[in-house]
Amino acid sequence: MERGTFITLEGTDGSGKTTQAARLAAALEAAGREVVRLREPGGTAISEKVRALLLDPANGAMTAPCELLLYEASRAQLVGEVVGPALACGAWVVCDRFADSTTAYQRAGRGLPASMVEGANALACGDCVPDVTLWLDVSPRRALGRALSGGCDRIEAEGLAFQERVRAGYEDVWRRHGDRVARVDASGTPDEVWGAVVAALAERGVHV
Amino acid sequence: MERGTFITLEGTDGSGKTTQAARLAAALEAAGREVVRLREPGGTAISEKVRALLLDPANGAMTAPCELLLYEASRAQLVGEVVGPALACGAWVVCDRFADSTTAYQRAGRGLPASMVEGANALACGDCVPDVTLWLDVSPRRALGRALSGGCDRIEAEGLAFQERVRAGYEDVWRRHGDRVARVDASGTPDEVWGAVVAALAERGVHV
Ligand SMILES: Nc1ncnc2c1ncn2[C@@H]1O[C@H](COP(=O)(O)OP(=O)(O)OP(=O)(O)O)[C@@H](O)[C@H]1O
Ligand SMILES: Nc1ncnc2c1ncn2[C@@H]1O[C@H](COP(=O)(O)OP(=O)(O)OP(=O)(O)O)[C@@H](O)[C@H]1O
Ligand SMILES: [Mg+2]
Ligand SMILES: [Mg+2]
Repeated sequence: MERGTFITLEGTDGSGKTTQAARLAAALEAAGREVVRLREPGGTAISEKVRALLLDPANGAMTAPCELLLYEASRAQLVGEVVGPALACGAWVVCDRFADSTTAYQRAGRGLPASMVEGANALACGDCVPDVTLWLDVSPRRALGRALSGGCDRIEAEGLAFQERVRAGYEDVWRRHGDRVARVDASGTPDEVWGAVVAALAERGVHV
Repeated sequence: MERGTFITLEGTDGSGKTTQAARLAAALEAAGREVVRLREPGGTAISEKVRALLLDPANGAMTAPCELLLYEASRAQLVGEVVGPALACGAWVVCDRFADSTTAYQRAGRGLPASMVEGANALACGDCVPDVTLWLDVSPRRALGRALSGGCDRIEAEGLAFQERVRAGYEDVWRRHGDRVARVDASGTPDEVWGAVVAALAERGVHV
């Protein structure tokens, strides 16, 4: 059985990840592929419970290391219970956020040491690395303008300066892992961004 | 302001940690010391929510890496919110379980790699290491006979063979960190064990 393909979508809040993940999953399914669509944090019953802790504004006293470790706990469960088995069965896994989110948010955003964040990601992921990561790059001001119409959770409440640091964190990941990470211009309409997603995947040999 | 003293109690389920932690805290308070008594996982509002996830039998699908990272998340919050600040203020911190529990349960008990468990402990604890650790050593059969009278949660349901591996894990920690970890014979009555606790602390210069 051929191993499946693991595609992740990354970007600051409101950059269009969920919108494009839905299109990608639909296109793959229309092409007859078996698709498992996931979101992080979440994707398993246990991971969703951890997600609830992370996003609850009542948990404002949460320290940055605790937050980091909760994201990794959620991820470890997702990898072990869903991503790993699905890939082993040859499925396509489309995941809305993955380990690069932790690098961008916890390291660049919150300022945790790189060694700490990389060590934590490695603990959660093991050898489960995406085949292609789509970084939806758009200015945080524009992205937040989209997202805030949908409400405001604990993370989004951090504001624009935080999102700018996160964007710079993604740029750094892209520079260091250009073989895996595709930068996608996400400033246009949903149709325009979808066109860029298809092109970025094709460039890496993934045809949808 | 002199830094406080950090004392942890370790041992398999039912070995008498909670009983002896209560005595120790009471003795220190009677001697006029400021005492912060904690239990792991738990000790902060956020850590208690993580504890609830860990101990809920409904979460039986939890993978070993997820479990490890949840323990560390709970610990990171406890260290950052309570242990670190209390020690900085000169208090005595008495903690029922700490990082050695993770070494014993996740590494020796569940068989996770040593490097993974040590890396995870380091992420949560940073430089917050106990001054003295009291390892309450008693045969798991005897200890479980005590504990099971009080009910049975997800961890305790693992059975005797698991507890034997955990005990061996504690022995290994004690051999490697004999300067910090005192082995206390915990097979006697509560009064006898308390006498051994007082003696072990005195040997390390802590007089209660
Ligand atoms: N290219 C686009 N142009 C304008 N609006 C968009 C575009 N893509 C998505 N939107 C809208 O912007 C909002 C955020 O999009 P979406 O939820 O897909 O982003 P996201 O990256 O998943 O956000 P979050 O990080 O909050 O999960 C939604 O209301 C969505 O309908
Ligand atoms: N030395 C002892 N001899 C007999 N029974 C004891 C002794 N110490 C404690 N007990 C009793 O055994 C049970 C377990 O003790 P305790 O709760 O202190 O252990 P513990 O190590 O904290 O257990 P757990 O790991 O389940 O938290 C309790 O009912 C307690 O009253
Ligand atoms: Mg989204
Ligand atoms: Mg106890």
